[in-house]
Amino acid sequence: MAQSLPQAGTVAELGEFALIDHIIAGLPSSPAVSLGPGDDAAVFLVNGSAVTSVDIFVEGVHFRRDWSEPFDIGRKCVAAAYADLEAMGAVGVALLIGLALPGDVPQLWAGQFSAGVRAEADRAGAALVGGDISSASQIMVSVTAVGQSDGLAPVTRAGARPDQVVAVCGRLGWAGAGLTALARGFRSPKAVVDTHRCPRVPYGQGRVAALAGASAMIDVSDGLLADLGHIAVASNVTIALDSKSFDVAEPVRAVAAATGRDPLDFVLTGGEDHALAATFRLGDVPEKWAVVGQVLPPPEDETAPAVLVDGIAWPSSAPGYSHF
Amino acid sequence: MAQSLPQAGTVAELGEFALIDHIIAGLPSSPAVSLGPGDDAAVFLVNGSAVTSVDIFVEGVHFRRDWSEPFDIGRKCVAAAYADLEAMGAVGVALLIGLALPGDVPQLWAGQFSAGVRAEADRAGAALVGGDISSASQIMVSVTAVGQSDGLAPVTRAGARPDQVVAVCGRLGWAGAGLTALARGFRSPKAVVDTHRCPRVPYGQGRVAALAGASAMIDVSDGLLADLGHIAVASNVTIALDSKSFDVAEPVRAVAAATGRDPLDFVLTGGEDHALAATFRLGDVPEKWAVVGQVLPPPEDETAPAVLVDGIAWPSSAPGYSHF
Repeated sequence: MAQSLPQAGTVAELGEFALIDHIIAGLPSSPAVSLGPGDDAAVFLVNGSAVTSVDIFVEGVHFRRDWSEPFDIGRKCVAAAYADLEAMGAVGVALLIGLALPGDVPQLWAGQFSAGVRAEADRAGAALVGGDISSASQIMVSVTAVGQSDGLAPVTRAGARPDQVVAVCGRLGWAGAGLTALARGFRSPKAVVDTHRCPRVPYGQGRVAALAGASAMIDVSDGLLADLGHIAVASNVTIALDSKSFDVAEPVRAVAAATGRDPLDFVLTGGEDHALAATFRLGDVPEKWAVVGQVLPPPEDETAPAVLVDGIAWPSSAPGYSHF
Repeated sequence: MAQSLPQAGTVAELGEFALIDHIIAGLPSSPAVSLGPGDDAAVFLVNGSAVTSVDIFVEGVHFRRDWSEPFDIGRKCVAAAYADLEAMGAVGVALLIGLALPGDVPQLWAGQFSAGVRAEADRAGAALVGGDISSASQIMVSVTAVGQSDGLAPVTRAGARPDQVVAVCGRLGWAGAGLTALARGFRSPKAVVDTHRCPRVPYGQGRVAALAGASAMIDVSDGLLADLGHIAVASNVTIALDSKSFDVAEPVRAVAAATGRDPLDFVLTGGEDHALAATFRLGDVPEKWAVVGQVLPPPEDETAPAVLVDGIAWPSSAPGYSHF
């Protein structure tokens, strides 16, 4: 655990170097890491190919300080980044974090944020090895997630083949329902609001899927239809989902009922759950995964939708969140 | 080269996905990279240990759009990040970039910025393998530089030993003099202003130093005295510089004369040149490096300065730039 910081005072009063010292104090050692934070660069071993992704998070765009505790914001940034590595079937190794923030941010916020970063890095099996801090007018976080292929070929988006099935692992619609509740001024149902604040990445299940022979995989960041659309395009297939195969969770139903929306709409278009979706030969689907559809040949008409629900396009399906 | 973008219009009008397509269009292939941008994560080979650093750059803190062209800002962000890898004696492999920017930034700015990123990545021997884009109220850039140790032990800051010498490679004082000129409303001397806009990292010389047996190394980002101070503390030594050993460049002298400052002050305390400073046994100093001082035992008095110039503390020496 990071040491506690005083409750009072801003990061400007604390100073850049003391903030860094706080964030890296008592970091656990990792056998792969030969040089952690404090030099010009970190040095660590990668078994097989390096599998690497960067994600940025901006206050007011990706999170709000009045909706989420700093511990959850730290966890969410790291979770979203490592979900990308899960979706390749890779194993987490190292984490680097960039943090730009206004000088008037409370020390307590920065301390709890970094504790959240470290807590989720533990879950993801990654060691915090480095970072950078700057002043800025708005909080921005950059997370570099480094993993290793560890003897398996990474699972891309491009390998889905007709006659395979589509399966998912993890929560779907929870984070989107939580965001809808928060946007309407509610703090409940707690289960979905908490999932918006920090997604529950099914750590290890990307590796399980890769070992089971997953042919394509993605994490659900923009919504299931949008993300399966990326697999459909990259693999040149159609994906056909069966709406009856989805088990819609009770708190998602509650938000749908309160807002007059179809509960399936949250499941199919809600973002930020960071569940995993993959394609398999039917007999290869792992235990904790649920089959939700089939892979079909590409449509003959190029303007036809790449993802179908019960044979037709889902009415509200969007191409995923676009900035600007 | 990236394709040209229309002169008119904002990034909001272009859209996130078209901007990404523009940035990654026609990326050259690299033998180490098996999967570049476009999937959940990039996949590439690392020879030996991974040597990795992240740097963040914020508009108004690290660069100003009225002082620098976007091409130079892109180059500078990448140069500063790869200088960290040079300082470990590592070899560049891969680059990931995070870009947060307001929607009203011109497409032309974004296009030239990304062309600068790609141009400097070429110089650093690194392939652009991934990134992320977000909207924000202020331009913020995160650069993840990944290198490989490639058969050599990385050179840390902690290996300097008494009786060794201190040597430098690259420009010193140029970027600081350029910043001083710009801050006073001048655009000349062009040589120093251009160095502020984009440092000239002595690519390859970190590797040369490591092969020659450098015992400690750092890149000069905060100023020579501040950065050698990091080596002195990490190695538990004193570093004694000889002011007569520095060859002060003419444009640096010109700015010093115009501002009534000691030209050596720019050389010793100017930041952002990203020259390299290292310690060697006397006979090991490589050809393009200049000996500027000696390594001595640590002071008996703990309050004594860790870096001396002609036997005493430099009057204006500062501990390096601190945010907030």
